[in-house]
Amino acid sequence: MSKVWNYYAGPCMLPVEVMEKAQKEFRDFEGTGMGVVELSHRSAEFMKVAKEAEALLRELLDIPSNYRVLFEQGGGRGQFAAIPLNLLPENGHADYFVTGHWSRCAFKECDEHYGKAILHECTFENKDGLYEVDYSKMKVTDGAAYAYMCINETVNGIESFELPDTGDVPLIADMSSDILTRPIDVSKFGAIIFGVQKNVAPAGMTVTIVREEDRKSVV
Amino acid sequence: MSKVWNYYAGPCMLPVEVMEKAQKEFRDFEGTGMGVVELSHRSAEFMKVAKEAEALLRELLDIPSNYRVLFEQGGGRGQFAAIPLNLLPENGHADYFVTGHWSRCAFKECDEHYGKAILHECTFENKDGLYEVDYSKMKVTDGAAYAYMCINETVNGIESFELPDTGDVPLIADMSSDILTRPIDVSKFGAIIFGVQKNVAPAGMTVTIVREEDRKSVV
Repeated sequence: MSKVWNYYAGPCMLPVEVMEKAQKEFRDFEGTGMGVVELSHRSAEFMKVAKEAEALLRELLDIPSNYRVLFEQGGGRGQFAAIPLNLLPENGHADYFVTGHWSRCAFKECDEHYGKAILHECTFENKDGLYEVDYSKMKVTDGAAYAYMCINETVNGIESFELPDTGDVPLIADMSSDILTRPIDVSKFGAIIFGVQKNVAPAGMTVTIVREEDRKSVV
Repeated sequence: MSKVWNYYAGPCMLPVEVMEKAQKEFRDFEGTGMGVVELSHRSAEFMKVAKEAEALLRELLDIPSNYRVLFEQGGGRGQFAAIPLNLLPENGHADYFVTGHWSRCAFKECDEHYGKAILHECTFENKDGLYEVDYSKMKVTDGAAYAYMCINETVNGIESFELPDTGDVPLIADMSSDILTRPIDVSKFGAIIFGVQKNVAPAGMTVTIVREEDRKSVV
């Protein structure tokens, strides 16, 4: 097989070793006589897969024990709805630090459907015509339920390497396109959301890493 | 490989020929040098797959041209929300013909979160202690936006072979566990919803077949 490179936006290519193993096990996963895509989500065999995936993610990102790891269907846009639906109380408000396309989509989802979202425009065009992040704009407002940002804005070519100091206000971050590219301090976030399709796995799943206290703040 | 049978609730086993083809193409789909799970959703190669899947489903179910076929992420419970979110106007109401567990879940989702759902209890216990469907209870109320039913209730062992006459009120049916088991007349429904995991494909996707007029009725 010729080696190719995939420069498309969207799903990633997976490591050859991973694809080889998946192909080999495709019709007979660990002696069950079934592929993993045919196994019941309630079977002991599949539960083991799910538990191991969580344990590995916890190890790789050094996720503290007071954070829950949720594997979910849907895509990033589903998460844009899930954040206010779960974390924004009635009559509350949230701060959106908009640095590009994806954080603007998240802002609009909250603003148009779920509650009061405060827009903070946090980028500016520099003298070379490139966009830069203005971290000084990332200031939370009084009583905000959470502050939201997208760490890596793929459409605009902007990655935020600094994190704003949001004090007691939980910082929620979309890390779909840079999760697992470098060590992060999970404890600085109320929640981290990401689609798996760029850096982790085939498309079709999202992951939420959420601090237990924040998960329970509204629901 | 020994042949096994899967009697678990949940995902199905797929035909051996399908699994063999998928395994063979897993790392090199039609000469792209990539597996289909690595291909961009915007690539010509993947768009062809999606178009062919729709064409084949249209052929198998003889879907009229005024029906749209939507392939979606999520599961049946996502659909329970999607139906009222898309078809129930503000201050409107919908009739739920409850014959068992799954239609009751759909009723609750609408009733608790989205709008007025009218409960019609449509089963009774016969003298042998088995449940039967009482089709005479399946009567729409004046001004209902739609009537909802689950054709095959797996938990309760009830399949409805008769369809109620709902007149001008669109009939919405969950066919997750009996879709493609027999010919159906799609034109009798406003929408048919199903998860693919039982009769069609690996878990992880739902399909909505919806009449264009009904799709546009609220949105």
